[in-house]
Amino acid sequence: MTTRRVVATLIALMWPCCALAAGISSATSDCLECHRSTTPGAVADWERSRHAQVTLKEAMARPSRERRVSLSQTPKGLADVVIGCAECHNQNPRKHQDTFEHEGYKVHVVVTPKDCATCHPTEVKQYIQNLMSHAHGNLNKNPVYHDLMEFTNGVATYEDMKISYKKPDAQTSAESCNYCHGTKVEVKGTKARDTEFGEMAFPILGGWPNQGVGRINPDESMGSCTACHTRHQFSIQMARKPYTCAECHQGPDVPAYKVYMVSKHGNIFSSLGGQWNVEAVPWTVGKDFTAPTCAACHASLIVTEDGNVVAERTHRMNDRLPWRLFGLIYAHPHSKSPDTTIIKNKAGLALPTELTGEPMATYLIDAQEQGKRRKTMEKVCLACHHDGWVAGQWSRFENTIKTTNESTVAATKLIMAAWDTGVAKGLAEDDSIFNEAIEKKWVEHWLFFANSTRFSSAMAGADYGVFANGRWYMNKNIQEMADWLEFKRKKTK
Amino acid sequence: MTTRRVVATLIALMWPCCALAAGISSATSDCLECHRSTTPGAVADWERSRHAQVTLKEAMARPSRERRVSLSQTPKGLADVVIGCAECHNQNPRKHQDTFEHEGYKVHVVVTPKDCATCHPTEVKQYIQNLMSHAHGNLNKNPVYHDLMEFTNGVATYEDMKISYKKPDAQTSAESCNYCHGTKVEVKGTKARDTEFGEMAFPILGGWPNQGVGRINPDESMGSCTACHTRHQFSIQMARKPYTCAECHQGPDVPAYKVYMVSKHGNIFSSLGGQWNVEAVPWTVGKDFTAPTCAACHASLIVTEDGNVVAERTHRMNDRLPWRLFGLIYAHPHSKSPDTTIIKNKAGLALPTELTGEPMATYLIDAQEQGKRRKTMEKVCLACHHDGWVAGQWSRFENTIKTTNESTVAATKLIMAAWDTGVAKGLAEDDSIFNEAIEKKWVEHWLFFANSTRFSSAMAGADYGVFANGRWYMNKNIQEMADWLEFKRKKTK
Amino acid sequence: MTTRRVVATLIALMWPCCALAAGISSATSDCLECHRSTTPGAVADWERSRHAQVTLKEAMARPSRERRVSLSQTPKGLADVVIGCAECHNQNPRKHQDTFEHEGYKVHVVVTPKDCATCHPTEVKQYIQNLMSHAHGNLNKNPVYHDLMEFTNGVATYEDMKISYKKPDAQTSAESCNYCHGTKVEVKGTKARDTEFGEMAFPILGGWPNQGVGRINPDESMGSCTACHTRHQFSIQMARKPYTCAECHQGPDVPAYKVYMVSKHGNIFSSLGGQWNVEAVPWTVGKDFTAPTCAACHASLIVTEDGNVVAERTHRMNDRLPWRLFGLIYAHPHSKSPDTTIIKNKAGLALPTELTGEPMATYLIDAQEQGKRRKTMEKVCLACHHDGWVAGQWSRFENTIKTTNESTVAATKLIMAAWDTGVAKGLAEDDSIFNEAIEKKWVEHWLFFANSTRFSSAMAGADYGVFANGRWYMNKNIQEMADWLEFKRKKTK
Repeated sequence: MTTRRVVATLIALMWPCCALAAGISSATSDCLECHRSTTPGAVADWERSRHAQVTLKEAMARPSRERRVSLSQTPKGLADVVIGCAECHNQNPRKHQDTFEHEGYKVHVVVTPKDCATCHPTEVKQYIQNLMSHAHGNLNKNPVYHDLMEFTNGVATYEDMKISYKKPDAQTSAESCNYCHGTKVEVKGTKARDTEFGEMAFPILGGWPNQGVGRINPDESMGSCTACHTRHQFSIQMARKPYTCAECHQGPDVPAYKVYMVSKHGNIFSSLGGQWNVEAVPWTVGKDFTAPTCAACHASLIVTEDGNVVAERTHRMNDRLPWRLFGLIYAHPHSKSPDTTIIKNKAGLALPTELTGEPMATYLIDAQEQGKRRKTMEKVCLACHHDGWVAGQWSRFENTIKTTNESTVAATKLIMAAWDTGVAKGLAEDDSIFNEAIEKKWVEHWLFFANSTRFSSAMAGADYGVFANGRWYMNKNIQEMADWLEFKRKKTK
Repeated sequence: MTTRRVVATLIALMWPCCALAAGISSATSDCLECHRSTTPGAVADWERSRHAQVTLKEAMARPSRERRVSLSQTPKGLADVVIGCAECHNQNPRKHQDTFEHEGYKVHVVVTPKDCATCHPTEVKQYIQNLMSHAHGNLNKNPVYHDLMEFTNGVATYEDMKISYKKPDAQTSAESCNYCHGTKVEVKGTKARDTEFGEMAFPILGGWPNQGVGRINPDESMGSCTACHTRHQFSIQMARKPYTCAECHQGPDVPAYKVYMVSKHGNIFSSLGGQWNVEAVPWTVGKDFTAPTCAACHASLIVTEDGNVVAERTHRMNDRLPWRLFGLIYAHPHSKSPDTTIIKNKAGLALPTELTGEPMATYLIDAQEQGKRRKTMEKVCLACHHDGWVAGQWSRFENTIKTTNESTVAATKLIMAAWDTGVAKGLAEDDSIFNEAIEKKWVEHWLFFANSTRFSSAMAGADYGVFANGRWYMNKNIQEMADWLEFKRKKTK
Repeated sequence: MTTRRVVATLIALMWPCCALAAGISSATSDCLECHRSTTPGAVADWERSRHAQVTLKEAMARPSRERRVSLSQTPKGLADVVIGCAECHNQNPRKHQDTFEHEGYKVHVVVTPKDCATCHPTEVKQYIQNLMSHAHGNLNKNPVYHDLMEFTNGVATYEDMKISYKKPDAQTSAESCNYCHGTKVEVKGTKARDTEFGEMAFPILGGWPNQGVGRINPDESMGSCTACHTRHQFSIQMARKPYTCAECHQGPDVPAYKVYMVSKHGNIFSSLGGQWNVEAVPWTVGKDFTAPTCAACHASLIVTEDGNVVAERTHRMNDRLPWRLFGLIYAHPHSKSPDTTIIKNKAGLALPTELTGEPMATYLIDAQEQGKRRKTMEKVCLACHHDGWVAGQWSRFENTIKTTNESTVAATKLIMAAWDTGVAKGLAEDDSIFNEAIEKKWVEHWLFFANSTRFSSAMAGADYGVFANGRWYMNKNIQEMADWLEFKRKKTK
């Protein structure tokens, strides 16, 4: 790399017109000329990337299992260049609402899955089927969840002995829920600005910055590949290391990373991962790595030293997951569609189960599909563990889905008792189910404690199922909800 | 290593009968033939291990301080082979209830301390005196603690305005408390299964999988060496790095890892540990490592560059600990026996103190033994710190034991007031002391907050003694317990 | 280095009088003679340090941007020696109350900023203007904060159905709040002690050990450079890595480290930081590191590959910070003076705002100074990000300052209602505002939840502004405070 870069830079400096020869397109070369000094960190980061070092032709010449691109034919003009600034930011200019004239080029700010699909079409196609790509709408356009967002992000005020909630502003939502779920990025106008190269005009973007997994882009695509494949190095090792997942999967509502890090797998990663080859494609179990990371179980192409495929690469993250564990009131089979706003339960709520737990089967994958997904995951487990180990693990996990759902039923009965006895206002009064103290306890029951317990079970992070937001808190919560009910009822009488 | 492995593999492939010559026993060679493809991850991991590279004779030939085995004489047949699959999984076949016929060998699934003792007898002998090896019984067979387990793991249900608790099922306990404390692994029968090599029969194990430190094994031994010496690489660096301890010592009930990681010691480990030699035996302070990990203070053989011994290796983890800090209601001198179920207080509870804090001296080490253990630990401190520093640290720590116990006395008086005034049911009513809201607050007082404060004091992780589950929460808890009492009493009247 | 050390040691052994020739002063050589065996860890650590390898003359000969010392002239006698034990511990003997006679030398235990200023005067001068150097007094001498300390660290007892608080003892405060804020280190006397070299006398120090950032030293200076520049390796990479900041900035009251670690920046550090050059001075963005650590944004000298300065080095940590986010009831412009005990609000409290949020402008930096500091920070952001990205980030952040302050107003109205209605005792009754349950909830509102939300906003750690101690908890807290008020008022009637 360094050599190529040095040569390219030297050639570019001496004969700018020849830059192409060394793999950097003349358009990218033009970008670099200024941006090397205006955004030096971004340029230096890109220079370390595979994008800066390998031409598309070279990338496509690799044996199929080792290939990091999935297109079948080289797009015109891209074969002999490395993937630089212009190859992404000037891609598909007419589709981009955020395209602007910039030093003779049509540039856009926000690189989107549609742009990435130029070289990675298979991954983008899978990703569109991924719940993540729909994360913006699944949260913001589901009335139940939208309501939860409002009473979480809106400021509660206190006047005349009464609490009321303001509507959350867009900036708050952008940096809280939608930081991960994705904002809607829109062009709001244009602004001229003095730069060291004279006055220039740039688009003003709403919902910006954002790299959320379900971002709605100015070309109408959904998602942001850089959520996991971090700019501008796009190193596969970042997507494979658990720290990337931790950005969105660490809080009490989804403690996957915390659980992983105290699991035996996480321990091996932390202790010995420095000696692994986290760059290799395909990824050989035992040789390249000795314990799974998040990606190994959920996404990566895994092979054995003999070249057998343990698991195919997928960017539809629930391909190996029969159960949806988190985010919703009860764990349940995954929904068929990545767009969960289409779901309605019998009570008319946009939820995959009744409030009392019964799943809405028509919208959810069936037992056969669940079995298939479980088998796909088990193949990963079995690369290191024997059959009895894996069977024992699954049996406990599915038992825990059952017991945590059962505990949530108890919490739900308590909240319903609060509504029925009039000490809290619920659906019948057309009131939010997220704005009173006991309702917030109910939310924590499933969103924090039942989830934590299930993650702990799924990935063997023991205390997250006990004292670290686990079963201890579920039972304590039931007691405290009942006490609250008792005090309020006494008062009401 | 690589050379030996390559040669061994080549020889094994060409002349299977000669495998022994290169160090791999013919039995292990037979295992590898299939398991290289059925569990490739496990085999590849083992191939990186010292077990796969060094024969017992070579291991015993090292100077005594550098030796990683503790036997005095080579067991028959083991001297010239590396320690492969068969050397462990075929060891002591008649003692193992889980032994089964497998391709002409008597194999067992669960490798136990008794098996490890073949080469590491001293470590296993020490470990039997370790509280950890008794962790299963100390939790499950202590009526007080068994009760706490029940009301933590059992699902609380709510019917007719009343809460009741189900008994927790075995699968739940296995993945929660007993994940760390150890399950009882039992053979439940045999199951035939189709494999790629035809139908084979395997034992069905209850309580499996498990690697808990106090696991009850099918050969009746207690413990699991792989809890810390992770399969199948068994790298000493894993046991020495804090991530291994974090598997069980990170939750709010025992936040040792969290405290360590924000301490100056943990900071040095995180910042500079990548440059240390974490494999060396013995472990030379200053040369091999520049700040202690958990193992350095509590277990490892530490020497100086001059070859002086700072601390002898121990697998009885409280050899350097005068005080038992966590798990119980009050901090107290360590118990004499690692089996704490034999303890009874005057009130008849299986606790080392009265509910009001007085220690049951007959069961506990005396001041002289405490002094000896403190001195042993101080030698480790003094390898880097001057006398005044170390004395100041100990003085504060023992003061904090006193003040946190004092705070627990206040919480206990509150719970007793609840029992006395009839707003909660306690021992007098033969009711559990862990099933009501105020009782759960009382448990958090000592199990979370007092413990966190003590760990913070012991290892200098400041905020874990203040706002991160420390003193702040103890005082808040006292206020809230008193409020609960007031509200309930009002209601009762 | 190794070579120099080996040579120095050999020379020292053969011709002790010549030790100086190899860079080690004869005084340090005398120290090493015994301390190599009495505190081997400390000596070995120092031997890895730049202090042990580079003479002051060599350090001063570096080009100005690469220099790690800031003095303009070599102090007498120090030019040709490396910086060993004696150069620090024998520095300024007459200023040090803790100086004692030791083997013919005047040695002091506690090395202070005044000692460090011998070679690093600019850094020490900046640090005196840093809030951190005043951390002891700002906490202990502010009556409001002193009161918070008392009711946090003092043991709450329960007698005759009543709670009362003991005064916290000095040892408790030293290991809790003052662990980070700094103790007052005082000489309490002298104690003779048997050592392997015969009886020796050492000073007895109160408030020792301590490395808090605002430590009051026996030479009357304030601060401890080793809080961040850890003894005895003093590696700049430790000060630059986030683990050092985590020692004091990780708890719920100041979760900066937690937020950073789940941010994209923290993720890049965790995933790729192992490949960075964390030792280089100056620190080149993109080349040496590809994402900022705490130090990069707040303290380090950052340059571009072209040699342009992105940010000057500073040890006044708020040079790039317009807003004070944490520790106080409301976020507000930074105070002009690092000594915040001089501030009084109109109500007479030592606070930079009224209880109801209005800032005390006379004590605080004005909009112009805020703008200047913001620009200084923005230059760091702009090294990688474009203008629109940075503007969007700041706009959200300042919006969040507004909304979190607004939420704290609501919590404050609730606490005032409690005081007004007589269900809690406050300022009017001359009672502490930190000792009742509802007051503790009020404290958590701003100290935990509003702070967490602001940090999350500042550094893009999404869930710390939502479910991980963020907005979710602010709104829940408002509900629970109102419920508490309602229950208490009912009781009072």
